[in-house]
Amino acid sequence: MSLIVEKYGGTSVGTVERINAVADKVAAARARGDDMVVVVSAMSGETNRLLALADEINANAPARELDVLLSTGEQVTIALLSMAMLRRGLDARSYTGGQVRIRTDSVHGRARILAIDDVRVRHDLARGRVVVVAGFQGVDDDQNITTLGRGGSDTTAVAMAAALKADECRIYTDVDGVYTADPRVVPEARRLNRITAEEMLELASLGAKVLQTRSVEFAGKYRVPLRVLSSFESGPGTLITCEDPDMEQPLISGIAFNRDEAKLTIRGVPDQPGVAYQILGPISDAHVNVDIILQNVGADGTTDLTFTVHRNDYQKCLGLLEQTASDLGAREVIGDDNIAKISVVGVGMRSHAGIATKMFQSLAEEGINIQMISTSEIKISVVVEDKYMELAVRTLHKAFDLETAPAA
Amino acid sequence: MSLIVEKYGGTSVGTVERINAVADKVAAARARGDDMVVVVSAMSGETNRLLALADEINANAPARELDVLLSTGEQVTIALLSMAMLRRGLDARSYTGGQVRIRTDSVHGRARILAIDDVRVRHDLARGRVVVVAGFQGVDDDQNITTLGRGGSDTTAVAMAAALKADECRIYTDVDGVYTADPRVVPEARRLNRITAEEMLELASLGAKVLQTRSVEFAGKYRVPLRVLSSFESGPGTLITCEDPDMEQPLISGIAFNRDEAKLTIRGVPDQPGVAYQILGPISDAHVNVDIILQNVGADGTTDLTFTVHRNDYQKCLGLLEQTASDLGAREVIGDDNIAKISVVGVGMRSHAGIATKMFQSLAEEGINIQMISTSEIKISVVVEDKYMELAVRTLHKAFDLETAPAA
Repeated sequence: MSLIVEKYGGTSVGTVERINAVADKVAAARARGDDMVVVVSAMSGETNRLLALADEINANAPARELDVLLSTGEQVTIALLSMAMLRRGLDARSYTGGQVRIRTDSVHGRARILAIDDVRVRHDLARGRVVVVAGFQGVDDDQNITTLGRGGSDTTAVAMAAALKADECRIYTDVDGVYTADPRVVPEARRLNRITAEEMLELASLGAKVLQTRSVEFAGKYRVPLRVLSSFESGPGTLITCEDPDMEQPLISGIAFNRDEAKLTIRGVPDQPGVAYQILGPISDAHVNVDIILQNVGADGTTDLTFTVHRNDYQKCLGLLEQTASDLGAREVIGDDNIAKISVVGVGMRSHAGIATKMFQSLAEEGINIQMISTSEIKISVVVEDKYMELAVRTLHKAFDLETAPAA
Repeated sequence: MSLIVEKYGGTSVGTVERINAVADKVAAARARGDDMVVVVSAMSGETNRLLALADEINANAPARELDVLLSTGEQVTIALLSMAMLRRGLDARSYTGGQVRIRTDSVHGRARILAIDDVRVRHDLARGRVVVVAGFQGVDDDQNITTLGRGGSDTTAVAMAAALKADECRIYTDVDGVYTADPRVVPEARRLNRITAEEMLELASLGAKVLQTRSVEFAGKYRVPLRVLSSFESGPGTLITCEDPDMEQPLISGIAFNRDEAKLTIRGVPDQPGVAYQILGPISDAHVNVDIILQNVGADGTTDLTFTVHRNDYQKCLGLLEQTASDLGAREVIGDDNIAKISVVGVGMRSHAGIATKMFQSLAEEGINIQMISTSEIKISVVVEDKYMELAVRTLHKAFDLETAPAA
C-alpha cells in the first residue's frame, strides 16, 4: 500500500464529465489499496472568467483581493470532485489551502509555501478517506488568502507529497510525459521514461512547459518522486527522479528551444573593474531578467559584453543600454531580436567529453552559424538566427540519436 | 460618527454595475464619517449555477461539500466589492466568514452562529478601513466551512451588528420597506416607518418574505436596530425596533397571508389522554411541520382534531392519517388543500379588546366563511377557502384602516 499524491490541472477537471472521470480514476487507485491525496486546479476557463470580472471593476486590482477572488476557482473544484467521489461510495473530504493549512509568505499572487500542517490530512487518510486539496492557494500567518501564481497547483501537489512523505506525486496534464523535444517540431521525438529533476529544470526553464519550475525544484529538494502523465490516455508517463548514479544515463535527455529572447551587445567599453555591474545594474533595476551573459576581452583595452533578455523587454533594454554606452564612452550598441536559443540537456554530459564538439559540428554541417555559446554542468546552449531554429533542433535530435530508446 | 453594518443581497450585487453602485453608496457613507461594515451575498444567479453543477455530479450532494461549494459565491462578491472600493480610494478589506471568524455549529446547510470574533474587524475599522464580509457562511470548531441556509446573509449582518454593537444594521433589498400588506394584492398598502421585531417575526413567518426570520429573532434578542430599505431607490425604509412602550402603537401593523397550507381533520376519535400525540406523532416522525392545531371535544365521547401542514406534505399526511384513523378507530379523515391563511398582526392588540370581533365581523359582512381560528398574543389567524384570500385581505386592510398613516 502506497501513499500517492495526484494533481489534476484545469483541463482535466474542466467539465462535469471530466470531474467524474477523475473520480473514477481515484476510485480505481483506492481499490488497489493506495492512500490518495488529490490536488486540483480551477476548472479551465474559470480563472480567466474571474480575472475578467476583476478587470472590469478595477483594472489595477489589488493583489490581496485578487487572491480572495481567484482562490474560489479551486474551491469549487474540490467540492465538486469530493461530491463525485462520495457518489461512488468513496469517503472523501475537501480542504482549501487555508484549511489544510498550507502556510505561505504574504506575497499575494506569487506566494511561497513555508510549511504544511499535515495533521488533518493524516487523520483523514488513517480513516480511509480520500483527501481533496485546493491547489494554487494557501494562507499567510494573518489568515489572509494567498495564491502561488499560475501553475501553482503543481507546487501544491509536490509540497503536499513532501510533507506527507508520499511514495509518488503524479501530475496529470494534457501531455503524456516529457519528450526529448517538442513533437510539433521533431516528429521523431520520444517520450522519456525517466529524467532527473536537474534535467527537467533545465528543460522547463528553457521552454518545455510541462511542469511549473518551482514544483520541480521542490521535488528535487525534498526528493519527491514525481511523475508526469496524461489525464486522457493511459501510460506510464515520465518519472522525474533524483539522480541515480547507478542508472545507465543517456548522454543527452532532451532538447529545449525558444524564440522568446533578444540579444543586446555593447561594444568597446573601457575595460575596468565594475563595468559589467555598470552595464547590467540599470537593466536589473528596470526589473528585467537577463538570461545569457557573455563578456569578451578585446585587444585594445576595451571589452564587449553581450546578453539576452525576453523579447518583450528588448526595446526598453535597448534604450537603457544606449544611455549606459554614452555614460561609459562605449563604441556602440547592437541589438538583435531575430534569435533563437537551443539547448541540449543531460546529466550524462558530466562524465562525457565531446558533447559540445558534436553539437557544434552538427550545426556547422548544416551551415548554421552559432552566435553565442553558454554552458552549465548539464546543459549547452547556443544562440542562432531564429529562422534556423527548427532545422537546428531536428539536426541535434538526430545527431544525439534521441529517437532511439536507450537499452533497458 | 456612527458604526453602520449594511447588507446587500444577491440582486443588489448581481452585476458589475450594481457592485459599483454599492461601492458608491458606501463611499458616500464613509464621506459622512460613518464606520462601515458591509455584508454581501453571492451575485444573483451564482448560487443556482453552483447548485446545478453539484446536482449534475451528485443529486444527493453531501452537505459539507455543498457548503464548500456555495460559500465561494459570497467570496467572489467580497473580493469584487473590495476592488471597487479600493478603486474609489477607500481602504477596504474583505473577509470570508472563516476569516472574521464567524463560529457556527456543524449543521451544514443551516448552521447557527455561536459567536463572532470581532478583533480583526475592529482593528480595521480603527484604521479607517471599510470591512467587507461574506454573508451566509461561517466555520465550525474544526474549521469546516458552514452555511446558514438561504437568506443567511441577513443573519450574518445582524450578528455582526450585534457583535460590534453597531448603531444600525441596514438590510438593502429589492423592496423599499415592510408594507401593511403585499401591494400586489392590496394596492393601498402602505410602507411602515417602524415595526417591532415581534410583529416582523409574525409577518415573516406568515409569508411576508422581506427578511429572514432568524435575522429578526437575532435583532430582537440582541436589540439591534434593523432597517430594511431598497438598494435601488432612496428612502428611509422600515425600522424594525425592539418594542417601545411609550410609542403610540397602531392596533394592527400588517396583514400576512398565504396559500401554502393544507388542512387535515380526523373526526370521531375516541377521546382519551394521549390522543393528540398518537395522531401527530407519526406526522412529526415524517419530518412534517404542523402549523395550526385545533381540537374540539365532541358530545359522544369522541373528539375531532384539525391541523394544517405545508401543501407539499398534504398527500403524505393524508396517508399517515388514514392509517392512524384505522388504528384508533376514528370515524373519518377529511382533507382540504383549497385553503388560505390570513393573519392580522400588531403589538397594539395586547391592550385592545375587540380586534378579533372586528376581524370576524368584517369577513362575515363579505360572506367569507371562517374555517379555523388561531390566536397568539399579537396575532389572529383565520383559515378560509382559498378563492376568498384576496378579498379577505383587502377587506381587513380597509377595516383596520391600514391605508392611513398613524398620526405622528
